[in-house]
Amino acid sequence: MLSLFNDEYFMKKALEEAESAYDKGEIPVGVVVVINDRIIARGHNLTETLNDVTAHAEMQAITAAANFLGGKSLQNCTMYITLEPCQMCAGALYWSQISKIVFGAEDLQRGYRKFGVQLHPKTEVKSGILAKEASDILKRFFIERRNLN
Amino acid sequence: MLSLFNDEYFMKKALEEAESAYDKGEIPVGVVVVINDRIIARGHNLTETLNDVTAHAEMQAITAAANFLGGKSLQNCTMYITLEPCQMCAGALYWSQISKIVFGAEDLQRGYRKFGVQLHPKTEVKSGILAKEASDILKRFFIERRNLN
Repeated sequence: MLSLFNDEYFMKKALEEAESAYDKGEIPVGVVVVINDRIIARGHNLTETLNDVTAHAEMQAITAAANFLGGKSLQNCTMYITLEPCQMCAGALYWSQISKIVFGAEDLQRGYRKFGVQLHPKTEVKSGILAKEASDILKRFFIERRNLN
Repeated sequence: MLSLFNDEYFMKKALEEAESAYDKGEIPVGVVVVINDRIIARGHNLTETLNDVTAHAEMQAITAAANFLGGKSLQNCTMYITLEPCQMCAGALYWSQISKIVFGAEDLQRGYRKFGVQLHPKTEVKSGILAKEASDILKRFFIERRNLN
């Protein structure tokens, strides 16, 4: 039997979060955190709205997921992220000991892999899920921004 | 004329924050953020209290300082940190574009320098200020923890 709940399904939910960021004039990145096919936390970038460089989608979702679970550790969780995490977010994911991250588009400029940032040894990584969609919304955002200025 | 406000002065304030963490059963790390010899934000580790791996002293102080300043950027600020920042906090400091960080003790296991994490090119780094004091409170904490278990 085919399950409704595959990587594309959850990445679409993360893309919906990215759309929410876009609508607020934020760089459109979104995430969801999943445990046993259930979304327990969502987040989208809010650095401008909150005036806070730490308010990346992943950071908020780590806090929210831990709050939901009643414990700091995100073992047994998977985070779906539209864009490759930055150094800060990968560092936070390290501390969370999350089981798996799945990201869409690569970030060759600011992504954690460029700098050698380490995830937890227990964390599995998968990438490229709906990468074009994740990349397209970012391109659309930056083109619109350029035209405004 | 000798100024009261030197690196040792502000690092002592950061150590007071580390003591506050200690008193709460938290790994004792503290920070202050300074602009023009004035402390605009303080923070100490609260990961256990808040059940949140992102609640490192530095992360809270970045948020608090930005809130005080009314802008995301911490240009013209110096952060005094009792311990070398981890990957996550160094990543957050990168985004903040902070002018200077001064830390006390090295963290050879989890410090950002081990992993190649990059601070912003504009950020000056100084280390070793009251390193023994910063290290001693951490040792005291872990010895006490070991004896409790």
